Amino acid sequence: MDVDQVLLEVVGEGEVASYIPALARVPADKFGIAVQTVEGDSFRAGDAEERFSIQSISKVFSLMLAMRIVTDSLWDRVGREPSGNAFNSLVQLEFERGIPRNPFINAGAIVVIDALISVLNEAKICFLEYARGLSGNESINFNDEVARSESETGYINFALANFLKAHDNIDNDLDVVLDTYFHHCSLDMSCVDLARAFLPLANNGFSTILGDAVLTRQQSRQVNSLMLTWGLYDAVGRFAYRVGLPAKSGVGGGIIAIVPNEMTIAVWGPGLDKTGNSAMGTRALEMFAQMTQRSIF
Amino acid sequence: MDVDQVLLEVVGEGEVASYIPALARVPADKFGIAVQTVEGDSFRAGDAEERFSIQSISKVFSLMLAMRIVTDSLWDRVGREPSGNAFNSLVQLEFERGIPRNPFINAGAIVVIDALISVLNEAKICFLEYARGLSGNESINFNDEVARSESETGYINFALANFLKAHDNIDNDLDVVLDTYFHHCSLDMSCVDLARAFLPLANNGFSTILGDAVLTRQQSRQVNSLMLTWGLYDAVGRFAYRVGLPAKSGVGGGIIAIVPNEMTIAVWGPGLDKTGNSAMGTRALEMFAQMTQRSIF
Amino acid sequence: MDVDQVLLEVVGEGEVASYIPALARVPADKFGIAVQTVEGDSFRAGDAEERFSIQSISKVFSLMLAMRIVTDSLWDRVGREPSGNAFNSLVQLEFERGIPRNPFINAGAIVVIDALISVLNEAKICFLEYARGLSGNESINFNDEVARSESETGYINFALANFLKAHDNIDNDLDVVLDTYFHHCSLDMSCVDLARAFLPLANNGFSTILGDAVLTRQQSRQVNSLMLTWGLYDAVGRFAYRVGLPAKSGVGGGIIAIVPNEMTIAVWGPGLDKTGNSAMGTRALEMFAQMTQRSIF
Amino acid sequence: MDVDQVLLEVVGEGEVASYIPALARVPADKFGIAVQTVEGDSFRAGDAEERFSIQSISKVFSLMLAMRIVTDSLWDRVGREPSGNAFNSLVQLEFERGIPRNPFINAGAIVVIDALISVLNEAKICFLEYARGLSGNESINFNDEVARSESETGYINFALANFLKAHDNIDNDLDVVLDTYFHHCSLDMSCVDLARAFLPLANNGFSTILGDAVLTRQQSRQVNSLMLTWGLYDAVGRFAYRVGLPAKSGVGGGIIAIVPNEMTIAVWGPGLDKTGNSAMGTRALEMFAQMTQRSIF
Repeated sequence: MDVDQVLLEVVGEGEVASYIPALARVPADKFGIAVQTVEGDSFRAGDAEERFSIQSISKVFSLMLAMRIVTDSLWDRVGREPSGNAFNSLVQLEFERGIPRNPFINAGAIVVIDALISVLNEAKICFLEYARGLSGNESINFNDEVARSESETGYINFALANFLKAHDNIDNDLDVVLDTYFHHCSLDMSCVDLARAFLPLANNGFSTILGDAVLTRQQSRQVNSLMLTWGLYDAVGRFAYRVGLPAKSGVGGGIIAIVPNEMTIAVWGPGLDKTGNSAMGTRALEMFAQMTQRSIF
Repeated sequence: MDVDQVLLEVVGEGEVASYIPALARVPADKFGIAVQTVEGDSFRAGDAEERFSIQSISKVFSLMLAMRIVTDSLWDRVGREPSGNAFNSLVQLEFERGIPRNPFINAGAIVVIDALISVLNEAKICFLEYARGLSGNESINFNDEVARSESETGYINFALANFLKAHDNIDNDLDVVLDTYFHHCSLDMSCVDLARAFLPLANNGFSTILGDAVLTRQQSRQVNSLMLTWGLYDAVGRFAYRVGLPAKSGVGGGIIAIVPNEMTIAVWGPGLDKTGNSAMGTRALEMFAQMTQRSIF
Repeated sequence: MDVDQVLLEVVGEGEVASYIPALARVPADKFGIAVQTVEGDSFRAGDAEERFSIQSISKVFSLMLAMRIVTDSLWDRVGREPSGNAFNSLVQLEFERGIPRNPFINAGAIVVIDALISVLNEAKICFLEYARGLSGNESINFNDEVARSESETGYINFALANFLKAHDNIDNDLDVVLDTYFHHCSLDMSCVDLARAFLPLANNGFSTILGDAVLTRQQSRQVNSLMLTWGLYDAVGRFAYRVGLPAKSGVGGGIIAIVPNEMTIAVWGPGLDKTGNSAMGTRALEMFAQMTQRSIF
Repeated sequence: MDVDQVLLEVVGEGEVASYIPALARVPADKFGIAVQTVEGDSFRAGDAEERFSIQSISKVFSLMLAMRIVTDSLWDRVGREPSGNAFNSLVQLEFERGIPRNPFINAGAIVVIDALISVLNEAKICFLEYARGLSGNESINFNDEVARSESETGYINFALANFLKAHDNIDNDLDVVLDTYFHHCSLDMSCVDLARAFLPLANNGFSTILGDAVLTRQQSRQVNSLMLTWGLYDAVGRFAYRVGLPAKSGVGGGIIAIVPNEMTIAVWGPGLDKTGNSAMGTRALEMFAQMTQRSIF
């Protein structure tokens, strides 16, 4: 598997997210890739060990944790269907009376976090410990500057949360819920951290790092199915068409992809295409899938 | 693999489609299942050899044929993204200015058929020959009564086609396009026919019946990815979550599912759940997936 | 009342409708204005006697006729509410399950005409006679070239009509309904004709030309209220704000405005602003209202 | 003018607003009516002197004040068009990128209040003084319990305000803007107060109480036009059709109607119909218009 070749062919492109300073100042030409196999092999190249803001990738951790500790009622509060792009966010939420279509749109992730807060004493801390445990890296942490910036400019998220509350789909204090949400999204991790932390999704729920199952086999497949049907926003169909692997992206430029029963691939390139996904990361995964002939289809 | 056990546990449920007489008079307690493996084994149970109206399942045949004979420009005229449910049909089409979100919603299938008509002299005949060839059954045929009924009551499809034309996304005569569309949907096939005809999608594009590739390996995967992200209307997320296999349903009660590299499973039960998918068929596939632990995730 | 002054200050502007040849070849610098008072005085200037395609202005005639001869059930099939602009046409119709929001959007006018056809033997002829009678001009007529062009390119209207039919809101043959609709819209009349024909709406329903009431006082007011709340598409609010008179425009560049109890004003300028209303006509009415201090508010 | 007769024929009906305690405990059988003419005559009947929560009627005061003291740029931040019903609130706001369609929907009123805050030191106090001055009643006041309840449960309004802020259409602190908004809506006034306060809108902008013009003649007409096209939510078309007078309603059960150049009519009945307007009030105004043959059309 020649990850260096992928690295060579992927050139800088796309626009770095600029809505908060901490993201805007990341150099556009950064690129890292890390692969972790279920047999324990790992590969890395480029800036694979540099930490970046994982942003929406954190929504997968939140969901994994919630599927473990929240009762099944979670799916009464959030759907499992993809969401047409022109209809995302507030519009869809209004038509569907406060039930977000899936746990990876912002409104859905906010509901998942509210559910976590209802059963955990210190949801933020528990989440951080969970991510540290999964990646086997006790030094990963929230980025307070990022969380603060998000909080100061995240009017759409405040609007979403208030709207969910108006539809009785938030149980806890709105400020606590949003503070937790912004912190989850602010987590700084490297490609290597991500590739290791998500290995259970390629391993039927078993974490080799923790030596224990963090999800059942079925739950692991379910998370993968949700990533495939709504992991890359409005590029999800094209990504499934071209790459054919469950994946989740974040606005910080990271993407984690799963090859079930084999490996995880984490890529990072801060330049985003117009669908909000890492331009280099998407191309790298496409090349990787073609070179290795990996696809779930 | 005990397909009879599946049969025993699935009881009659759901509502038979009643918008045209030919569908309405099908007994609700019919149920058939057929499995075809890439090694050449086959299993069948119940009404597996009885023909029924495949309806929207025909959209996969249309697409497969179009991917083979229409240039890449097909994807300029139709998208590859899932479609939120409350927003399907005309609404979405208007917001997106006449570009259907994917080839499996009605508007998308109409565009695919228009593209076929532009390159084929006798699109209806070619399509029929294509389906006959894939299933190795020269006796399958259109159901003229069904096609006529659809044509007489299909005002929504006429509305969609006119709207597409208004946006310059139909090249041929509307009546010809719709007549072809209604005939494709009227195809009568059995579970056994379907399981055989779709085997190339489980076999990297190779048809053992024809002894030839009908799609490239990549195209085969692409069709599977499109089925996974929009094959079961607004139940696509839940189906991916519970069953985890690419599949396509029709309002006649049929569902075809693909286990890549292994087999196809065709089920038929005319009673539909509220998402418009076969209630018995969905349950049967769920049981099958659980019993055999098959899933692409 | 110095209608010539209005004429002098209104300069050519806007874009002539170009979707059909007969409209596209009208010179953009045409401008006419005609005023008719309930006392019998009349004023005219510019191209006031030249006939043009009245297009959507015909919807008011259709409605007036329907209010006279169709039972109250008309309002079960079409609403009386304004329609937000981004949501017009098919989108709104789908959300509201086939009940057009008002009789002046295309879908609403199609329903009104369907209702007329149900009670009249020869709806087209009756309509023509009605318009001739109201204007006291036996020579006005349909423009067959315009009707044919509309019919050949009016895919959106065909889509709307099919959609209405799918929702059981059309009783007659679709082709007959649309042919009638296209003919109504194709009526050629001059400003003078229009100012005379609409005088009953300024005269509590009484036609001085016919020497008879064509509407009750209440019906006359009701038609005016519908014009005020949806006569000028998405410019209705601004027009009410600036001009303050019930009015109806057509894509041919005509606008008819009503000063209740006093007079009618018909203007014509083929150049349209981006809301689809005559640019010169709107400005002329604005100047007229300011100069004469007429407003219903 | 026999306002007592109106009173006798209007019976209790509709549902009292129950989303906050202060509104829920108002007896459903209250009913008052007050008429004030430009000549100085006044009539009153029933509970015409009892104060109630004027709620959205306050939006007219906010707008009148803003038209006086805010520059024309107000109309760059808020539209003047009616809003289709199924598409109000967040949905419409999202499609139109943060520009509310008119100053009487909640989002529009919040923008108007933000504009007032930008030019006034103490917007709440100025507004209260303005309402007191217009009605000639120094004792009218905000209802702090109502304002507090709205603030505690008004998640939709918080969502709207955050969404407006996300689109840069709020300049001031969100909490200050919403606190001001909730206070404006909490104003307690009687029918007599309202009939007197709104007299300038029937009097070309001149307040006989203040002995001064509070609006120009044109501005007065403009406010009336806005009331006619969006004063009664989704009943605006039917109300214009049946009553034919500019009017504004509030969820507290009040409605103020204007007969230009003649009089104002204020009615109050707490029971609301399904469009959110006073059921008794609407019927009373309909009877009044019929009996007196008043209509702007």
